[in-house]
Amino acid sequence: MSDRLEDAITPVDAETAATHVDSDAVVAVSGFGAVGYPKALPLALAEADRDLELTIISGGSVGTEIDTALVEASAVARRYPYQSRPAARAAVNDGTIAYQDRFISAVGDEVALGSLPEPDIAIVEAVAVGDGWFVPSLSIGHTAAYVRAASALIIEVNSAIPREIGQFHDVYERELPPDRKPIPLEHPADRIGEDRIRFDPDALLAVVETETADDPYSFREPSATDREIAANLATFLEAELERCSIFDDRIALQFGVGSLGNALMGALSDIDFGDRDVYYYGEVFQDGLLEMIENGTLAGASATSFALSVEGQRQLFSDIDQYSESVVLRTAALSNSPALIDRFGVVGINSAVEVDLYGHVNSTHVGGSRVLNGVGGSGDFNRNSPLTITTLPSRHGAETSCLVPMCPHVDHTEHDISVVITEQGVADLRGSAPRERSRLLIEGCAHPQFVDDLKAYVERSEASGGHVPHHLESAFSWRS
Amino acid sequence: MSDRLEDAITPVDAETAATHVDSDAVVAVSGFGAVGYPKALPLALAEADRDLELTIISGGSVGTEIDTALVEASAVARRYPYQSRPAARAAVNDGTIAYQDRFISAVGDEVALGSLPEPDIAIVEAVAVGDGWFVPSLSIGHTAAYVRAASALIIEVNSAIPREIGQFHDVYERELPPDRKPIPLEHPADRIGEDRIRFDPDALLAVVETETADDPYSFREPSATDREIAANLATFLEAELERCSIFDDRIALQFGVGSLGNALMGALSDIDFGDRDVYYYGEVFQDGLLEMIENGTLAGASATSFALSVEGQRQLFSDIDQYSESVVLRTAALSNSPALIDRFGVVGINSAVEVDLYGHVNSTHVGGSRVLNGVGGSGDFNRNSPLTITTLPSRHGAETSCLVPMCPHVDHTEHDISVVITEQGVADLRGSAPRERSRLLIEGCAHPQFVDDLKAYVERSEASGGHVPHHLESAFSWRS
Repeated sequence: MSDRLEDAITPVDAETAATHVDSDAVVAVSGFGAVGYPKALPLALAEADRDLELTIISGGSVGTEIDTALVEASAVARRYPYQSRPAARAAVNDGTIAYQDRFISAVGDEVALGSLPEPDIAIVEAVAVGDGWFVPSLSIGHTAAYVRAASALIIEVNSAIPREIGQFHDVYERELPPDRKPIPLEHPADRIGEDRIRFDPDALLAVVETETADDPYSFREPSATDREIAANLATFLEAELERCSIFDDRIALQFGVGSLGNALMGALSDIDFGDRDVYYYGEVFQDGLLEMIENGTLAGASATSFALSVEGQRQLFSDIDQYSESVVLRTAALSNSPALIDRFGVVGINSAVEVDLYGHVNSTHVGGSRVLNGVGGSGDFNRNSPLTITTLPSRHGAETSCLVPMCPHVDHTEHDISVVITEQGVADLRGSAPRERSRLLIEGCAHPQFVDDLKAYVERSEASGGHVPHHLESAFSWRS
Repeated sequence: MSDRLEDAITPVDAETAATHVDSDAVVAVSGFGAVGYPKALPLALAEADRDLELTIISGGSVGTEIDTALVEASAVARRYPYQSRPAARAAVNDGTIAYQDRFISAVGDEVALGSLPEPDIAIVEAVAVGDGWFVPSLSIGHTAAYVRAASALIIEVNSAIPREIGQFHDVYERELPPDRKPIPLEHPADRIGEDRIRFDPDALLAVVETETADDPYSFREPSATDREIAANLATFLEAELERCSIFDDRIALQFGVGSLGNALMGALSDIDFGDRDVYYYGEVFQDGLLEMIENGTLAGASATSFALSVEGQRQLFSDIDQYSESVVLRTAALSNSPALIDRFGVVGINSAVEVDLYGHVNSTHVGGSRVLNGVGGSGDFNRNSPLTITTLPSRHGAETSCLVPMCPHVDHTEHDISVVITEQGVADLRGSAPRERSRLLIEGCAHPQFVDDLKAYVERSEASGGHVPHHLESAFSWRS
């Protein structure tokens, strides 16, 4: 462990460190894409015989140590900005945890400006710690902002992650408004910062040594539907590469987190990109991208998290020198920056729960009420990309259409979505009026079994007129 | 007129110029905030005995010459990105005009990238024309992007507007992605461009002389409700100035277009801003700001349109030298730039049709179907401001609550809105979970006559659980 800690630092055990956390503390933790989060402290807190009412602010999703163990110990009263574990989801949906899901890009600012609760303490995972600095582990997220906002800090140093992971990191912190400078990043895979996060040494309460692997996502194998969606996406993208001159020399793509996103990333190898340089510019680096870096399909990648499977991690760790030449890990404020998405012209490709006849998208709630995970970074990209593509199956199971008359929860409006792609086909909604959109979506994307009912809804709605025709009485009971 | 046209240019009459417009042309016009739009050409087209099916793309709202006369002549088949006149609104709602309302900031890019129809011709209003350049009149909007995208150009030179109006202008054009540079504007009222828009002289088909005043907005006098909303806003803002350190030295505010926005701007004089420099950074410069510039309350203002009443115009024109020291007119891509709203920390203050119990906002559609104007710039600010305030009356008329269980049309999601203010009070939604939001909104903002029904809806919804509890069967029929 000597290469992980500077000599002057004496580690303590997690139980001792956990006593620094007040029972109603606002705790900001590292972690994004279910990696790079603290592990020993949350478990020690979950196992302590204490009556805890913690507020937990993470960068993005974290592992079971936080969103399962702490939740099952009834220690979490409040949670931001994202969760993706069954225990946390159940507690959020029954109202025991007060949760608000937030757009990822701005969460660091929201903490800095007091729009979210002010952190009492930051608990972060690192691969190395020195005097006033640490090197984050597998994700960067909003850790730098949280460390800056909190007056106390506990660091877990995880020797299960190679020390060399810092070769990927590019930590660049922005000023706050009103004299905030433009981000000086000129190219998707450039570096403008350093490998470490700086902190006030007086804030450091404890360092804890761990040697625990992350509890990352596992992705299912692509289904037949996933592959059909990927094929439709490939056909559409190839035509768009020819059509739109901003993609002549270079294209940057983002894919959402999850099995479909991972499958779509993997399918990029089948697209003929010609001589273009292809970059990934998104929030998570998933397994699907590793091989593309390896075989040179991808010129580079920028993310804030290595949301890799265990096998993917092994592959990454096996050749950090090579991968770090073209892969950069940034703060979430930069990986998801509205300004950079705009400047690089990133094509945003995100999945959804359902899409309505006018192109509004629900990416978070079942039945309008029960949240799955959270809006996450999809909003950052859907809002700021010059070309935003929503990919989803045309139905869930045998009886549920993913094209519906009206989404009972809207995360992305008709203005955000350029194109919708299902395994049935493509609906290019750009420039179309609402009455045209309903036809494009039914013809291009609906599952055949729902087409008659959807057309009947359109007819019923248009009978009473309006720019966005709706028949509110049957908007949620449209199946005849 | 000799000071308006260079010697080599021979003007023609509008009827002659109008023959250059094909019957199914995509026509991009100048105009924003109902000023600075072409007048003679649209009237000539409306009066021509031709079967027209035009697509009209404006910067923002325009006057009756386009959205009334051309519409009533059945000459408009398609319309982007905003309309605000009864004739256009009626045709959009009955489906005769295919309309899509768009977020303002990106419309220039959407035209450049072919996400909207490619303009065949640009028709613009200017105060002066030379060899390959013109000086726009009372608005800049997306005119520069439209002129660049179209291969043909007709210019109306309006001598009813002072030539000196160009002293306000700052036209700065951005590169397209993927090597788009950061916007080099460092301060809300700085200048980085020039007073004119450049064009390819070969594209110029005709110049037409006009001397016609704009047909701008007229604002109603502030009502008692407007004044109560303004007073609640003032109280909230004064507390926020103390609380949040990014406002210590300087604050930039944006107000939406319209009578309430105008009334709120006028009420700024009552707020104690201390030693802070106060700037307006928004899309329209309305009457409410003139006096604040005059008396020094406002250090400066940036907009893309002088959406002034006739009296306001007169006041502005009377001392262009003085006003232009602190007032700048920019392209809409910069006045509404997501990156600049973020960097300057602009506080966005916009009105709405209705707000739902969880903070989703409908700013465009009545009954979910019938559009009023369009989403306009509200989305640019609501999405990117560190503090976004939605102001609206608690009810419309005697029987319609503006706080509803579920918005039947969503323009801005729960994630965008920090604070809701009605004449009843304030609901600060920052950091709150959905079940907390419904209580904050009912207690803070609801009209008393609807409180019981709203609480009954909450109870009904929460009985079936969920993160965002809804009772879909009664979401739109909640009044008992």
